[in-house]
Amino acid sequence: MRICRTPEEMRSACRELKASAPGGRGLVRELGFVPTMGALHAGHMSLVEAARRECGVVAASIFVNPTQFAPGEDFAAYPRTLEEDCAKLEAAGVGVVFAPAAETMYPAGTTAFVDVGELGERLDGASRPGHFRGVATIVARLLNIVGPDRAYFGQKDAAQAAVLRRMVRDLNLGVEVRVCPIVREADGLAMSSRNAYLSAEERARALVLRRALDAAEETVRAGERNASAVRAAMLAYFSDFADPQGEGLRLDYAEVVDAESLLPVSEVRAGDLVAVAAWVGRTRLIDNFLVGVG
Amino acid sequence: MRICRTPEEMRSACRELKASAPGGRGLVRELGFVPTMGALHAGHMSLVEAARRECGVVAASIFVNPTQFAPGEDFAAYPRTLEEDCAKLEAAGVGVVFAPAAETMYPAGTTAFVDVGELGERLDGASRPGHFRGVATIVARLLNIVGPDRAYFGQKDAAQAAVLRRMVRDLNLGVEVRVCPIVREADGLAMSSRNAYLSAEERARALVLRRALDAAEETVRAGERNASAVRAAMLAYFSDFADPQGEGLRLDYAEVVDAESLLPVSEVRAGDLVAVAAWVGRTRLIDNFLVGVG
Repeated sequence: MRICRTPEEMRSACRELKASAPGGRGLVRELGFVPTMGALHAGHMSLVEAARRECGVVAASIFVNPTQFAPGEDFAAYPRTLEEDCAKLEAAGVGVVFAPAAETMYPAGTTAFVDVGELGERLDGASRPGHFRGVATIVARLLNIVGPDRAYFGQKDAAQAAVLRRMVRDLNLGVEVRVCPIVREADGLAMSSRNAYLSAEERARALVLRRALDAAEETVRAGERNASAVRAAMLAYFSDFADPQGEGLRLDYAEVVDAESLLPVSEVRAGDLVAVAAWVGRTRLIDNFLVGVG
Repeated sequence: MRICRTPEEMRSACRELKASAPGGRGLVRELGFVPTMGALHAGHMSLVEAARRECGVVAASIFVNPTQFAPGEDFAAYPRTLEEDCAKLEAAGVGVVFAPAAETMYPAGTTAFVDVGELGERLDGASRPGHFRGVATIVARLLNIVGPDRAYFGQKDAAQAAVLRRMVRDLNLGVEVRVCPIVREADGLAMSSRNAYLSAEERARALVLRRALDAAEETVRAGERNASAVRAAMLAYFSDFADPQGEGLRLDYAEVVDAESLLPVSEVRAGDLVAVAAWVGRTRLIDNFLVGVG
Protein backbone atom coordinates (compact mmCIF):
# COMPACT_ATOMS: atom_id res chain seq x y z
CA MET A 1 0.00 0.00 0.00
CA ARG A 2 1.33 3.37 -1.04
CA ILE A 3 1.07 6.40 1.27
CA CYS A 4 1.00 9.78 -0.49
CA ARG A 5 1.65 13.15 1.14
CA THR A 6 0.96 15.62 -1.68
CA PRO A 7 -2.00 16.11 -4.04
CA GLU A 8 0.26 15.62 -7.10
CA GLU A 9 1.63 12.33 -5.76
CA MET A 10 -1.88 11.13 -4.86
CA ARG A 11 -3.33 12.12 -8.23
CA SER A 12 -0.80 10.08 -10.17
CA ALA A 13 -0.90 7.15 -7.69
CA CYS A 14 -4.69 6.96 -8.13
CA ARG A 15 -4.36 7.08 -11.90
CA GLU A 16 -1.90 4.18 -11.77
CA LEU A 17 -4.02 2.30 -9.24
CA LYS A 18 -7.08 2.59 -11.45
CA ALA A 19 -5.14 1.49 -14.52
CA SER A 20 -3.98 -1.58 -12.55
CA ALA A 21 -7.53 -2.61 -11.62
CA PRO A 22 -8.87 -5.87 -13.04
CA GLY A 23 -10.15 -4.93 -16.48
CA GLY A 24 -10.95 -6.69 -19.71
CA ARG A 25 -14.20 -8.11 -21.11
CA GLY A 26 -17.16 -7.41 -18.85
CA LEU A 27 -14.97 -6.12 -16.06
CA VAL A 28 -14.83 -2.45 -15.21
CA ARG A 29 -11.79 -0.65 -13.85
CA GLU A 30 -13.57 1.15 -11.06
CA LEU A 31 -11.90 3.10 -8.29
CA GLY A 32 -13.62 3.35 -4.90
CA PHE A 33 -12.65 6.09 -2.42
CA VAL A 34 -13.11 6.26 1.36
CA PRO A 35 -12.28 9.70 2.81
CA THR A 36 -11.73 9.64 6.60
CA MET A 37 -10.30 11.72 9.43
CA GLY A 38 -8.49 8.60 10.71
CA ALA A 39 -8.92 7.10 14.20
CA LEU A 40 -10.48 4.28 12.25
CA HIS A 41 -13.12 2.03 13.81
CA ALA A 42 -15.41 -0.70 12.48
CA GLY A 43 -17.69 1.94 10.94
CA HIS A 44 -14.89 3.19 8.69
CA MET A 45 -13.82 -0.36 7.90
CA SER A 46 -17.35 -1.22 6.75
CA LEU A 47 -16.97 1.56 4.15
CA VAL A 48 -13.68 0.08 2.97
CA GLU A 49 -15.31 -3.36 2.74
CA ALA A 50 -18.21 -1.95 0.69
CA ALA A 51 -15.73 -0.23 -1.62
CA ARG A 52 -13.78 -3.49 -2.00
CA ARG A 53 -16.98 -5.37 -2.91
CA GLU A 54 -18.17 -2.80 -5.42
CA CYS A 55 -14.95 -1.52 -7.04
CA GLY A 56 -11.84 -3.08 -8.53
CA VAL A 57 -9.46 -0.96 -6.46
CA VAL A 58 -9.79 1.26 -3.39
CA ALA A 59 -8.11 4.47 -2.25
CA ALA A 60 -8.57 6.11 1.15
CA SER A 61 -7.58 9.37 2.83
CA ILE A 62 -6.70 10.23 6.40
CA PHE A 63 -6.90 13.95 7.04
CA VAL A 64 -8.14 15.81 10.09
CA ASN A 65 -9.53 18.76 8.18
CA PRO A 66 -9.12 21.98 10.18
CA THR A 67 -11.74 23.96 8.22
CA GLN A 68 -14.62 21.73 9.33
CA PHE A 69 -14.01 22.40 13.02
CA ALA A 70 -15.72 25.50 14.37
CA PRO A 71 -13.71 27.74 16.72
CA GLY A 72 -13.49 26.13 20.16
CA GLU A 73 -14.18 22.62 18.85
CA ASP A 74 -11.93 19.57 19.27
CA PHE A 75 -9.57 19.98 16.28
CA ALA A 76 -6.40 19.83 18.41
CA ALA A 77 -7.68 16.97 20.59
CA TYR A 78 -9.10 14.89 17.74
CA PRO A 79 -7.49 11.40 17.94
CA ARG A 80 -4.59 10.88 15.51
CA THR A 81 -3.51 7.25 15.06
CA LEU A 82 -1.90 7.25 11.63
CA GLU A 83 0.22 4.10 11.95
CA GLU A 84 -2.57 1.90 13.23
CA ASP A 85 -4.93 3.39 10.65
CA CYS A 86 -2.57 2.57 7.79
CA ALA A 87 -2.11 -1.00 9.05
CA LYS A 88 -5.89 -1.49 9.10
CA LEU A 89 -6.33 -0.03 5.63
CA GLU A 90 -3.54 -2.14 4.18
CA ALA A 91 -4.99 -5.30 5.75
CA ALA A 92 -8.37 -4.40 4.26
CA GLY A 93 -6.96 -4.22 0.74
CA VAL A 94 -6.65 -0.46 0.21
CA GLY A 95 -4.16 0.32 -2.58
CA VAL A 96 -3.30 3.97 -1.92
CA VAL A 97 -3.72 6.24 1.13
CA PHE A 98 -3.57 10.02 1.06
CA ALA A 99 -2.32 11.48 4.36
CA PRO A 100 -1.32 15.10 3.73
CA ALA A 101 -0.23 17.65 6.31
CA ALA A 102 -2.64 20.51 7.05
CA GLU A 103 -0.13 23.01 5.57
CA THR A 104 -0.02 20.99 2.35
CA MET A 105 -3.77 21.26 1.91
CA TYR A 106 -4.08 24.82 3.21
CA PRO A 107 -0.97 26.82 2.34
CA ALA A 108 -1.12 30.54 3.11
CA GLY A 109 -3.43 32.32 0.66
CA THR A 110 -5.90 29.45 0.22
CA THR A 111 -9.25 31.18 -0.10
CA ALA A 112 -11.54 29.19 -2.44
CA PHE A 113 -14.32 27.13 -0.92
CA VAL A 114 -17.40 25.12 -1.79
CA ASP A 115 -20.70 25.83 -0.09
CA VAL A 116 -24.14 24.23 -0.41
CA GLY A 117 -26.07 27.29 0.76
CA GLU A 118 -28.84 27.00 3.39
CA LEU A 119 -28.67 23.20 3.36
CA GLY A 120 -25.34 23.53 5.13
CA GLU A 121 -26.92 25.49 7.99
CA ARG A 122 -29.37 22.81 9.06
CA LEU A 123 -29.02 20.14 11.83
CA ASP A 124 -25.30 19.92 12.66
CA GLY A 125 -24.71 22.93 10.43
CA ALA A 126 -26.85 25.03 12.79
CA SER A 127 -24.76 24.24 15.87
CA ARG A 128 -21.39 23.98 14.09
CA PRO A 129 -20.99 27.23 12.10
CA GLY A 130 -18.96 26.68 8.93
CA HIS A 131 -18.75 22.92 9.50
CA PHE A 132 -20.41 21.86 6.26
CA ARG A 133 -18.57 24.47 4.21
CA GLY A 134 -15.36 22.88 5.49
CA VAL A 135 -16.66 19.38 4.76
CA ALA A 136 -17.92 20.24 1.26
CA THR A 137 -14.67 21.99 0.38
CA ILE A 138 -12.33 19.23 1.51
CA VAL A 139 -14.44 16.45 0.01
CA ALA A 140 -14.68 18.27 -3.34
CA ARG A 141 -10.90 18.69 -3.30
CA LEU A 142 -10.26 15.06 -2.38
CA LEU A 143 -12.62 13.93 -5.14
CA ASN A 144 -10.78 16.19 -7.60
CA ILE A 145 -7.45 14.67 -6.58
CA VAL A 146 -8.52 11.01 -6.40
CA GLY A 147 -11.01 10.97 -9.29
CA PRO A 148 -12.98 7.96 -8.01
CA ASP A 149 -16.01 6.30 -9.58
CA ARG A 150 -17.66 5.85 -6.15
CA ALA A 151 -17.08 7.54 -2.80
CA TYR A 152 -18.19 6.01 0.52
CA PHE A 153 -19.64 7.78 3.55
CA GLY A 154 -21.38 6.63 6.74
CA GLN A 155 -25.08 7.09 7.48
CA LYS A 156 -24.18 8.18 11.01
CA ASP A 157 -23.29 11.55 9.47
CA ALA A 158 -26.72 11.81 7.86
CA ALA A 159 -26.67 15.60 7.34
CA GLN A 160 -23.20 15.33 5.84
CA ALA A 161 -24.52 12.71 3.41
CA ALA A 162 -27.29 15.10 2.31
CA VAL A 163 -24.80 17.96 1.92
CA LEU A 164 -22.39 15.85 -0.14
CA ARG A 165 -25.10 14.36 -2.35
CA ARG A 166 -26.27 17.90 -3.09
CA MET A 167 -22.74 19.10 -3.78
CA VAL A 168 -21.92 16.22 -6.11
CA ARG A 169 -25.15 16.76 -8.05
CA ASP A 170 -25.02 20.58 -8.20
CA LEU A 171 -21.34 20.78 -9.12
CA ASN A 172 -21.43 17.87 -11.61
CA LEU A 173 -18.71 16.02 -9.76
CA GLY A 174 -19.54 12.83 -11.64
CA VAL A 175 -18.99 10.42 -8.74
CA GLU A 176 -21.48 8.03 -7.20
CA VAL A 177 -22.05 8.83 -3.51
CA ARG A 178 -22.59 5.62 -1.52
CA VAL A 179 -23.89 5.90 2.04
CA CYS A 180 -23.41 2.81 4.24
CA PRO A 181 -25.39 1.77 7.35
CA ILE A 182 -24.41 2.84 10.85
CA VAL A 183 -22.16 0.36 12.64
CA ARG A 184 -22.87 0.05 16.38
CA GLU A 185 -21.22 -1.24 19.52
CA ALA A 186 -22.85 -4.34 21.10
CA ASP A 187 -25.03 -2.13 23.31
CA GLY A 188 -26.26 0.01 20.44
CA LEU A 189 -23.98 3.07 20.68
CA ALA A 190 -23.15 4.32 17.18
CA MET A 191 -19.44 3.95 16.50
CA SER A 192 -17.56 7.25 16.41
CA SER A 193 -13.95 8.30 16.77
CA ARG A 194 -15.23 10.71 19.42
CA ASN A 195 -16.43 7.84 21.66
CA ALA A 196 -12.79 7.64 22.75
CA TYR A 197 -13.31 10.90 24.65
CA LEU A 198 -15.97 9.40 26.94
CA SER A 199 -15.34 8.49 30.59
CA ALA A 200 -16.95 5.23 31.81
CA GLU A 201 -19.82 7.22 33.28
CA GLU A 202 -20.30 9.25 30.10
CA ARG A 203 -20.08 6.08 28.00
CA ALA A 204 -23.10 4.72 29.90
CA ARG A 205 -24.98 8.02 29.57
CA ALA A 206 -24.25 8.17 25.83
CA LEU A 207 -26.74 5.34 25.26
CA VAL A 208 -29.52 7.87 25.78
CA LEU A 209 -29.16 8.96 22.13
CA ARG A 210 -29.87 5.44 20.91
CA ARG A 211 -32.68 4.93 23.43
CA ALA A 212 -34.36 8.17 22.37
CA LEU A 213 -34.22 7.01 18.75
CA ASP A 214 -35.62 3.62 19.82
CA ALA A 215 -38.51 5.46 21.45
CA ALA A 216 -39.10 7.42 18.24
CA GLU A 217 -38.92 4.27 16.13
CA GLU A 218 -41.39 2.50 18.42
CA THR A 219 -43.78 5.44 18.14
CA VAL A 220 -43.62 5.34 14.33
CA ARG A 221 -44.01 1.56 14.29
CA ALA A 222 -47.13 1.93 16.45
CA GLY A 223 -48.66 3.96 13.62
CA GLU A 224 -47.90 7.54 14.67
CA ARG A 225 -47.40 9.78 11.61
CA ASN A 226 -47.40 13.16 13.32
CA ALA A 227 -43.79 14.36 13.38
CA SER A 228 -44.38 16.49 16.50
CA ALA A 229 -45.52 13.40 18.40
CA VAL A 230 -42.46 11.43 17.24
CA ARG A 231 -40.24 14.30 18.23
CA ALA A 232 -41.99 14.58 21.61
CA ALA A 233 -41.18 10.92 22.31
CA MET A 234 -37.47 11.74 21.90
CA LEU A 235 -37.63 14.96 23.90
CA ALA A 236 -39.42 13.20 26.76
CA TYR A 237 -36.71 10.58 26.82
CA PHE A 238 -34.02 13.24 26.96
CA SER A 239 -35.74 15.34 29.62
CA ASP A 240 -35.82 12.26 31.89
CA PHE A 241 -32.07 11.98 31.66
CA ALA A 242 -30.96 15.53 31.15
CA ASP A 243 -28.77 17.19 33.68
CA PRO A 244 -30.15 20.66 34.50
CA GLN A 245 -26.61 22.01 34.72
CA GLY A 246 -26.13 20.63 31.21
CA GLU A 247 -22.84 19.01 32.14
CA GLY A 248 -23.89 15.38 32.06
CA LEU A 249 -26.16 15.40 29.02
CA ARG A 250 -27.36 18.33 26.94
CA LEU A 251 -29.59 17.92 23.90
CA ASP A 252 -28.53 19.78 20.75
CA TYR A 253 -31.36 18.68 18.44
CA ALA A 254 -33.93 15.92 18.06
CA GLU A 255 -35.61 16.31 14.68
CA VAL A 256 -37.73 14.59 12.06
CA VAL A 257 -36.65 15.96 8.67
CA ASP A 258 -36.68 15.27 4.96
CA ALA A 259 -33.49 13.29 4.34
CA GLU A 260 -32.49 15.39 1.30
CA SER A 261 -33.49 18.95 2.25
CA LEU A 262 -33.00 18.43 6.02
CA LEU A 263 -36.13 20.55 6.55
CA PRO A 264 -38.58 19.49 9.29
CA VAL A 265 -41.58 17.47 8.10
CA SER A 266 -45.02 17.59 9.68
CA GLU A 267 -46.14 14.12 8.55
CA VAL A 268 -43.65 11.27 8.80
CA ARG A 269 -43.04 9.30 5.58
CA ALA A 270 -40.81 6.37 4.70
CA GLY A 271 -37.27 7.61 4.05
CA ASP A 272 -37.52 10.55 6.44
CA LEU A 273 -34.59 11.13 8.75
CA VAL A 274 -35.00 11.02 12.54
CA ALA A 275 -31.82 12.45 14.03
CA VAL A 276 -30.44 13.44 17.43
CA ALA A 277 -27.35 15.25 18.61
CA ALA A 278 -26.32 15.76 22.22
CA TRP A 279 -23.37 16.73 24.33
CA VAL A 280 -22.37 14.02 26.76
CA GLY A 281 -20.03 15.87 29.05
CA ARG A 282 -17.83 17.81 26.62
CA THR A 283 -18.29 15.31 23.78
CA ARG A 284 -20.84 15.96 21.06
CA LEU A 285 -22.42 12.76 19.73
CA ILE A 286 -24.94 12.17 16.93
CA ASP A 287 -27.14 9.30 15.85
CA ASN A 288 -30.14 8.73 13.56
CA PHE A 289 -32.33 6.34 11.65
CA LEU A 290 -34.25 6.48 8.37
CA VAL A 291 -37.96 5.77 8.74
CA GLY A 292 -39.02 2.35 7.45
CA VAL A 293 -35.67 1.63 5.87
CA GLY A 294 -33.27 -1.16 6.85
CA MET B 1 -18.73 18.18 -34.53
CA ARG B 2 -21.08 16.89 -31.86
CA ILE B 3 -23.38 19.28 -29.95
CA CYS B 4 -24.37 18.12 -26.46
CA ARG B 5 -27.24 19.47 -24.40
CA THR B 6 -26.88 17.64 -21.06
CA PRO B 7 -23.93 17.17 -18.66
CA GLU B 8 -24.14 13.36 -18.98
CA GLU B 9 -24.03 13.52 -22.79
CA MET B 10 -21.12 15.99 -22.68
CA ARG B 11 -19.18 13.95 -20.14
CA SER B 12 -19.27 10.81 -22.25
CA ALA B 13 -18.67 12.71 -25.52
CA CYS B 14 -15.54 14.27 -24.02
CA ARG B 15 -14.32 10.89 -22.79
CA GLU B 16 -14.74 9.48 -26.31
CA LEU B 17 -13.17 12.57 -27.91
CA LYS B 18 -10.13 12.28 -25.68
CA ALA B 19 -9.79 8.55 -26.39
CA SER B 20 -9.88 9.38 -30.12
CA ALA B 21 -7.03 11.91 -29.87
CA PRO B 22 -3.78 11.11 -31.64
CA GLY B 23 -1.90 8.91 -29.17
CA GLY B 24 0.91 6.40 -29.27
CA ARG B 25 4.64 6.76 -28.68
CA GLY B 26 5.62 10.27 -27.64
CA LEU B 27 2.19 11.66 -28.37
CA VAL B 28 -0.17 12.60 -25.59
CA ARG B 29 -3.93 12.35 -25.74
CA GLU B 30 -4.65 15.82 -24.39
CA LEU B 31 -8.03 17.50 -24.33
CA GLY B 32 -8.22 21.30 -24.54
CA PHE B 33 -11.36 23.15 -23.45
CA VAL B 34 -12.62 26.63 -24.36
CA PRO B 35 -15.60 27.76 -22.25
CA THR B 36 -17.52 30.69 -23.76
CA MET B 37 -20.81 32.56 -23.50
CA GLY B 38 -21.10 32.46 -27.31
CA ALA B 39 -21.36 35.53 -29.59
CA LEU B 40 -17.94 34.41 -30.71
CA HIS B 41 -15.41 36.91 -32.07
CA ALA B 42 -11.76 36.72 -33.04
CA GLY B 43 -10.77 36.80 -29.35
CA HIS B 44 -12.61 33.54 -28.68
CA MET B 45 -11.29 32.00 -31.87
CA SER B 46 -7.71 32.75 -30.79
CA LEU B 47 -8.39 30.59 -27.72
CA VAL B 48 -9.63 27.76 -29.93
CA GLU B 49 -6.54 28.09 -32.11
CA ALA B 50 -4.24 27.95 -29.08
CA ALA B 51 -6.08 24.86 -27.83
CA ARG B 52 -5.73 23.26 -31.27
CA ARG B 53 -1.99 23.95 -31.29
CA GLU B 54 -1.39 22.64 -27.77
CA CYS B 55 -3.82 19.70 -27.46
CA GLY B 56 -4.79 16.70 -29.54
CA VAL B 57 -8.51 17.44 -29.38
CA VAL B 58 -10.65 20.43 -28.39
CA ALA B 59 -14.03 20.82 -26.71
CA ALA B 60 -15.89 24.11 -26.24
CA SER B 61 -18.99 25.32 -24.43
CA ILE B 62 -21.54 28.00 -25.22
CA PHE B 63 -23.57 28.96 -22.19
CA VAL B 64 -24.80 32.38 -21.12
CA ASN B 65 -24.52 31.70 -17.41
CA PRO B 66 -27.29 33.50 -15.50
CA THR B 67 -25.55 33.36 -12.11
CA GLN B 68 -22.66 35.57 -13.21
CA PHE B 69 -24.93 38.47 -14.11
CA ALA B 70 -25.79 40.77 -11.23
CA PRO B 71 -29.41 41.95 -10.92
CA GLY B 72 -30.14 44.62 -13.52
CA GLU B 73 -27.29 43.56 -15.79
CA ASP B 74 -27.59 42.50 -19.43
CA PHE B 75 -28.38 38.77 -19.05
CA ALA B 76 -31.55 38.93 -21.16
CA ALA B 77 -29.99 41.20 -23.81
CA TYR B 78 -26.69 39.31 -24.08
CA PRO B 79 -26.20 38.36 -27.75
CA ARG B 80 -27.13 34.75 -28.56
CA THR B 81 -25.89 33.48 -31.92
CA LEU B 82 -25.73 29.72 -31.44
CA GLU B 83 -25.84 28.62 -35.09
CA GLU B 84 -23.10 30.96 -36.28
CA ASP B 85 -21.04 30.10 -33.20
CA CYS B 86 -21.25 26.37 -33.90
CA ALA B 87 -20.29 26.89 -37.55
CA LYS B 88 -17.20 28.86 -36.44
CA LEU B 89 -16.20 26.24 -33.87
CA GLU B 90 -16.65 23.38 -36.33
CA ALA B 91 -14.56 25.18 -38.96
CA ALA B 92 -11.85 25.73 -36.32
CA GLY B 93 -11.61 22.01 -35.57
CA VAL B 94 -13.57 21.74 -32.31
CA GLY B 95 -14.73 18.14 -31.71
CA VAL B 96 -17.54 18.60 -29.18
CA VAL B 97 -19.62 21.61 -28.10
CA PHE B 98 -21.66 21.81 -24.91
CA ALA B 99 -24.68 24.10 -25.27
CA PRO B 100 -27.04 23.37 -22.38
CA ALA B 101 -30.25 25.24 -21.50
CA ALA B 102 -30.19 27.36 -18.33
CA GLU B 103 -32.77 25.02 -16.75
CA THR B 104 -30.52 22.04 -17.42
CA MET B 105 -27.64 23.63 -15.52
CA TYR B 106 -29.77 25.21 -12.79
CA PRO B 107 -32.80 23.04 -12.06
CA ALA B 108 -34.91 24.09 -9.05
CA GLY B 109 -33.10 23.32 -5.80
CA THR B 110 -29.58 23.98 -7.10
CA THR B 111 -27.80 25.60 -4.17
CA ALA B 112 -24.12 24.59 -4.16
CA PHE B 113 -21.57 27.13 -5.30
CA VAL B 114 -17.85 27.81 -5.49
CA ASP B 115 -16.40 31.04 -4.11
CA VAL B 116 -12.85 32.38 -3.97
CA GLY B 117 -13.45 34.65 -0.98
CA GLU B 118 -12.26 38.26 -0.98
CA LEU B 119 -10.40 37.83 -4.28
CA GLY B 120 -13.82 37.65 -5.94
CA GLU B 121 -14.75 41.08 -4.57
CA ARG B 122 -11.95 43.03 -6.22
CA LEU B 123 -11.94 44.97 -9.54
CA ASP B 124 -14.99 43.75 -11.52
CA GLY B 125 -16.09 41.80 -8.44
CA ALA B 126 -16.50 45.10 -6.57
CA SER B 127 -18.90 46.58 -9.11
CA ARG B 128 -20.61 43.33 -10.12
CA PRO B 129 -21.78 41.68 -6.84
CA GLY B 130 -21.80 37.90 -7.09
CA HIS B 131 -20.23 37.94 -10.57
CA PHE B 132 -17.12 35.94 -9.73
CA ARG B 133 -19.02 33.47 -7.55
CA GLY B 134 -21.16 32.77 -10.63
CA VAL B 135 -18.08 32.51 -12.86
CA ALA B 136 -16.16 30.25 -10.45
CA THR B 137 -19.17 27.98 -9.98
CA ILE B 138 -19.97 27.50 -13.66
CA VAL B 139 -16.33 27.07 -14.68
CA ALA B 140 -15.74 24.48 -11.91
CA ARG B 141 -18.83 22.62 -13.11
CA LEU B 142 -17.81 22.75 -16.77
CA LEU B 143 -14.32 21.51 -15.86
CA ASN B 144 -15.90 18.67 -13.85
CA ILE B 145 -18.03 17.69 -16.84
CA VAL B 146 -15.42 18.06 -19.58
CA GLY B 147 -12.36 16.86 -17.66
CA PRO B 148 -9.82 18.71 -19.84
CA ASP B 149 -6.04 18.79 -19.51
CA ARG B 150 -5.95 22.52 -20.36
CA ALA B 151 -8.60 25.23 -20.27
CA TYR B 152 -8.31 28.51 -22.23
CA PHE B 153 -9.34 32.00 -21.14
CA GLY B 154 -8.72 35.51 -22.46
CA GLN B 155 -6.44 38.07 -20.83
CA LYS B 156 -9.10 40.73 -21.43
CA ASP B 157 -10.90 39.27 -18.42
CA ALA B 158 -7.79 39.66 -16.26
CA ALA B 159 -9.58 39.55 -12.89
CA GLN B 160 -11.46 36.45 -14.03
CA ALA B 161 -8.15 34.82 -14.93
CA ALA B 162 -6.84 35.51 -11.39
CA VAL B 163 -10.04 34.15 -9.84
CA LEU B 164 -9.96 30.97 -11.93
CA ARG B 165 -6.25 30.33 -11.37
CA ARG B 166 -6.87 30.63 -7.63
CA MET B 167 -9.90 28.33 -7.81
CA VAL B 168 -8.09 25.66 -9.82
CA ARG B 169 -5.17 25.73 -7.41
CA ASP B 170 -7.15 25.87 -4.16
CA LEU B 171 -9.69 23.20 -5.17
CA ASN B 172 -7.11 20.89 -6.78
CA LEU B 173 -8.98 20.89 -10.08
CA GLY B 174 -5.96 19.44 -11.83
CA VAL B 175 -6.27 21.40 -15.07
CA GLU B 176 -3.77 23.78 -16.61
CA VAL B 177 -5.22 27.30 -16.92
CA ARG B 178 -3.98 28.99 -20.10
CA VAL B 179 -4.56 32.71 -20.51
CA CYS B 180 -4.20 34.07 -24.06
CA PRO B 181 -3.41 37.65 -25.17
CA ILE B 182 -6.11 40.24 -25.82
CA VAL B 183 -7.24 40.40 -29.44
CA ARG B 184 -8.04 43.93 -30.67
CA GLU B 185 -9.88 45.65 -33.47
CA ALA B 186 -7.70 47.55 -35.97
CA ASP B 187 -8.07 50.77 -33.95
CA GLY B 188 -7.09 49.11 -30.66
CA LEU B 189 -10.48 48.43 -29.05
CA ALA B 190 -10.36 45.12 -27.17
CA MET B 191 -12.72 42.61 -28.77
CA SER B 192 -15.80 41.86 -26.69
CA SER B 193 -19.21 40.41 -27.38
CA ARG B 194 -20.56 43.54 -25.68
CA ASN B 195 -19.06 45.80 -28.37
CA ALA B 196 -22.15 44.83 -30.39
CA TYR B 197 -24.20 47.04 -28.02
CA LEU B 198 -22.33 50.23 -29.00
CA SER B 199 -23.80 52.94 -31.23
CA ALA B 200 -21.38 54.51 -33.75
CA GLU B 201 -20.83 57.42 -31.37
CA GLU B 202 -20.23 55.13 -28.40
CA ARG B 203 -17.93 52.95 -30.50
CA ALA B 204 -15.69 56.00 -31.05
CA ARG B 205 -15.84 56.98 -27.38
CA ALA B 206 -14.97 53.40 -26.31
CA LEU B 207 -11.40 53.98 -27.52
CA VAL B 208 -10.80 56.07 -24.41
CA LEU B 209 -10.18 52.86 -22.42
CA ARG B 210 -7.35 51.86 -24.73
CA ARG B 211 -5.97 55.41 -24.86
CA ALA B 212 -5.92 55.65 -21.06
CA LEU B 213 -3.98 52.38 -20.90
CA ASP B 214 -1.61 53.72 -23.58
CA ALA B 215 -1.02 56.76 -21.37
CA ALA B 216 -0.28 54.50 -18.40
CA GLU B 217 2.04 52.31 -20.47
CA GLU B 218 3.88 55.38 -21.72
CA THR B 219 4.30 56.62 -18.15
CA VAL B 220 5.77 53.29 -17.04
CA ARG B 221 8.01 53.14 -20.11
CA ALA B 222 9.30 56.62 -19.24
CA GLY B 223 10.53 55.16 -15.93
CA GLU B 224 7.71 55.97 -13.54
CA ARG B 225 7.40 53.28 -10.84
CA ASN B 226 4.98 55.04 -8.53
CA ALA B 227 1.60 53.35 -8.97
CA SER B 228 -0.31 56.50 -7.97
CA ALA B 229 1.39 58.43 -10.76
CA VAL B 230 0.55 55.72 -13.29
CA ARG B 231 -3.01 55.68 -12.07
CA ALA B 232 -3.18 59.47 -12.26
CA ALA B 233 -2.17 59.33 -15.93
CA MET B 234 -5.23 57.17 -16.61
CA LEU B 235 -7.58 59.24 -14.47
CA ALA B 236 -6.45 62.44 -16.19
CA TYR B 237 -7.21 60.87 -19.54
CA PHE B 238 -10.66 59.85 -18.39
CA SER B 239 -11.49 63.19 -16.80
CA ASP B 240 -10.75 64.91 -20.14
CA PHE B 241 -13.37 62.76 -21.82
CA ALA B 242 -15.83 62.05 -19.05
CA ASP B 243 -19.36 63.23 -19.38
CA PRO B 244 -20.44 64.97 -16.16
CA GLN B 245 -23.92 63.44 -16.51
CA GLY B 246 -22.17 60.09 -16.70
CA GLU B 247 -24.18 59.04 -19.74
CA GLY B 248 -21.51 59.17 -22.37
CA LEU B 249 -18.56 57.80 -20.43
CA ARG B 250 -18.30 56.86 -16.75
CA LEU B 251 -15.19 55.37 -15.17
CA ASP B 252 -15.69 52.30 -12.99
CA TYR B 253 -12.07 51.68 -12.03
CA ALA B 254 -8.53 52.43 -13.22
CA GLU B 255 -6.10 50.45 -11.07
CA VAL B 256 -2.56 49.13 -10.80
CA VAL B 257 -2.74 45.81 -8.95
CA ASP B 258 -0.87 42.60 -8.31
CA ALA B 259 -2.03 40.25 -11.08
CA GLU B 260 -2.66 37.33 -8.69
CA SER B 261 -4.11 38.96 -5.57
CA LEU B 262 -5.73 41.89 -7.46
CA LEU B 263 -4.66 44.13 -4.56
CA PRO B 264 -3.35 47.66 -5.36
CA VAL B 265 0.43 47.99 -5.49
CA SER B 266 2.34 51.11 -4.51
CA GLU B 267 5.42 50.42 -6.64
CA VAL B 268 4.93 49.10 -10.17
CA ARG B 269 6.78 45.87 -11.00
CA ALA B 270 6.95 43.69 -14.12
CA GLY B 271 3.90 41.44 -14.28
CA ASP B 272 1.59 43.86 -12.48
CA LEU B 273 -1.83 44.40 -13.94
CA VAL B 274 -2.98 47.83 -15.13
CA ALA B 275 -6.73 47.60 -15.68
CA VAL B 276 -9.64 49.88 -16.51
CA ALA B 277 -13.40 49.47 -16.62
CA ALA B 278 -15.88 52.06 -17.78
CA TRP B 279 -19.46 52.43 -18.87
CA VAL B 280 -19.80 53.76 -22.40
CA GLY B 281 -23.46 54.69 -22.52
CA ARG B 282 -25.14 51.66 -20.96
CA THR B 283 -22.36 49.26 -21.97
CA ARG B 284 -19.67 48.29 -19.48
CA LEU B 285 -16.29 47.69 -21.12
CA ILE B 286 -12.98 46.52 -19.68
CA ASP B 287 -9.36 46.49 -20.88
CA ASN B 288 -5.90 46.02 -19.37
CA PHE B 289 -2.23 45.30 -19.89
CA LEU B 290 0.47 43.48 -17.93
CA VAL B 291 3.50 45.65 -17.14
CA GLY B 292 6.57 44.77 -19.17
CA VAL B 293 5.05 41.65 -20.65
CA GLY B 294 4.25 40.96 -24.32
